[in-house]
Amino acid sequence: MSWLYLAFEPTEQQTYLDLLLSSGLQADDIQRTPDHNTKVTFGSPRKIAETLKEMPNLAWAHSSWAGVEPLLQQPRDNFELTNTRDVFGPLIAEFVFGYLLLFEKNILAKYENQQLGKWDDQLPGTLRGKTIGIAGVGSIGSHVAMVAKSFGMITRGLTRNSTDCRFIDRFYTSANPVGFGTGLDYLVGVLPNTTYTRDLINGAMLAALNTGAIVINVGRGATLDERALEIELRNDHLRGAVLDVLKTEPLPTQDPLWQVPNLFITSHTSAPSFPAQVIHPFLKNLHLFKQGQPLLYKVSFKQQY
Amino acid sequence: MSWLYLAFEPTEQQTYLDLLLSSGLQADDIQRTPDHNTKVTFGSPRKIAETLKEMPNLAWAHSSWAGVEPLLQQPRDNFELTNTRDVFGPLIAEFVFGYLLLFEKNILAKYENQQLGKWDDQLPGTLRGKTIGIAGVGSIGSHVAMVAKSFGMITRGLTRNSTDCRFIDRFYTSANPVGFGTGLDYLVGVLPNTTYTRDLINGAMLAALNTGAIVINVGRGATLDERALEIELRNDHLRGAVLDVLKTEPLPTQDPLWQVPNLFITSHTSAPSFPAQVIHPFLKNLHLFKQGQPLLYKVSFKQQY
Repeated sequence: MSWLYLAFEPTEQQTYLDLLLSSGLQADDIQRTPDHNTKVTFGSPRKIAETLKEMPNLAWAHSSWAGVEPLLQQPRDNFELTNTRDVFGPLIAEFVFGYLLLFEKNILAKYENQQLGKWDDQLPGTLRGKTIGIAGVGSIGSHVAMVAKSFGMITRGLTRNSTDCRFIDRFYTSANPVGFGTGLDYLVGVLPNTTYTRDLINGAMLAALNTGAIVINVGRGATLDERALEIELRNDHLRGAVLDVLKTEPLPTQDPLWQVPNLFITSHTSAPSFPAQVIHPFLKNLHLFKQGQPLLYKVSFKQQY
Repeated sequence: MSWLYLAFEPTEQQTYLDLLLSSGLQADDIQRTPDHNTKVTFGSPRKIAETLKEMPNLAWAHSSWAGVEPLLQQPRDNFELTNTRDVFGPLIAEFVFGYLLLFEKNILAKYENQQLGKWDDQLPGTLRGKTIGIAGVGSIGSHVAMVAKSFGMITRGLTRNSTDCRFIDRFYTSANPVGFGTGLDYLVGVLPNTTYTRDLINGAMLAALNTGAIVINVGRGATLDERALEIELRNDHLRGAVLDVLKTEPLPTQDPLWQVPNLFITSHTSAPSFPAQVIHPFLKNLHLFKQGQPLLYKVSFKQQY
């Protein structure tokens, strides 16, 4: 009897089906439609949320994304919820350091001077010895901190509970956002969207950053006050910012945010889900599920992450 | 009696003098002009080479640069020669990964689409799992390999003697440049300029790289065949290249190399000498020198590095 429903977007469904069948799942395990026999579902949080009412006996849902807002915004919580981790940390770290180095190495200015045939020997800056603040110290934030250490940086973490990351030099709580921001050269937001994190990266935190600081948000758009960021960019307190996530996605073509100076908008691409990577946390948990053991990567409906 | 001559470029002389005086050296130690009392000199390799004939009793010369070609191209070798290490590795690593991520994260394309107000959700590539070849495994190459490991990459090293770097997965010698190049996604040149390294990064090595590979040279311009690189860029075998060092520096405005597609020219800025960092290896060696102990960071006139 089939018991697993794959709840992916239509464009992804076949890719995941093929990968899972070649990873040892049987065609008989997989349902064509969700029903009262569905014990497990794996898919995008939006599709799972849409399908929940058709799976009354669901025991476990595994999200192919890190963010699971659609599943937190519906009332039902009588199933185990897990999400995709250990996959996005490396991708987010690449994104963060790609943009920090874009600024520090003056890459755009050198590229423009090259068009003029100009030998531009202006010296670049360096990450080494700078202080980076990471708002959100889960598996993604920890990975960013690890790479920051390989570049010789000083690291701070803003977190409610995760104070055991060995790559973070000093921890702060959201009770002290200004203390966290004071003295930072770089601020990286990797916060989930919860009732506790709305606009946690606010005007007071941004104003506390070092002059010339760089801000990157790869968490959720809801966690950063876009208007406050624009003010700090326009008054030259900040050197630059990168928003991969926004309060409105996709950002409309006419939105003035596109034109804010020194603001890069990267259209929610910092952590693409590569199916060949995303299936691994699911398969690891499926093994545990079949053995009746506790699952990894659990999301608390109460904590919302 | 004074015994130390500072042989810096005029623009740097005062900065280094001030730093050394505030680091414990006495004004009496430092000579205004080089003479038969000069036991030690510290400065740029070009200025030291120009001054050698006035320092007949020189025991030790310390170069403020990593590359020491001017001191190898003159006949005298009856003094100890040391150079600046452990300072440039972090800077070069930042440069290398800044440009690799510029390509992988499609940063320029996203920036251009932003000007059009276009939500560009094309997915980026990743460094993770890719193979990077590092030609030259000294203190700089080792540092690049260390950061590559923090990004989850597979590493190869091309070296004559330095096969003890724990961040390199596999070593190759210059007897097998094509074997080294075969299967590389990224090639980074950090070779010194010696009689053994001229055009070591040649057409055969470049042709062996994976289709779509990226080449970065931060060693010396003499070590890479620029014409062969241009061919591999123009026939789209390579995705891109970055030359921080060139056979002719500064590159003349009219040189056609400026206009080669997907070639970035960065005007020998990848590893700026920050005097506050550069004095440390010198001071460490000076302490050893005064105690009559063996010096660190020795350059062999025979091996030329």
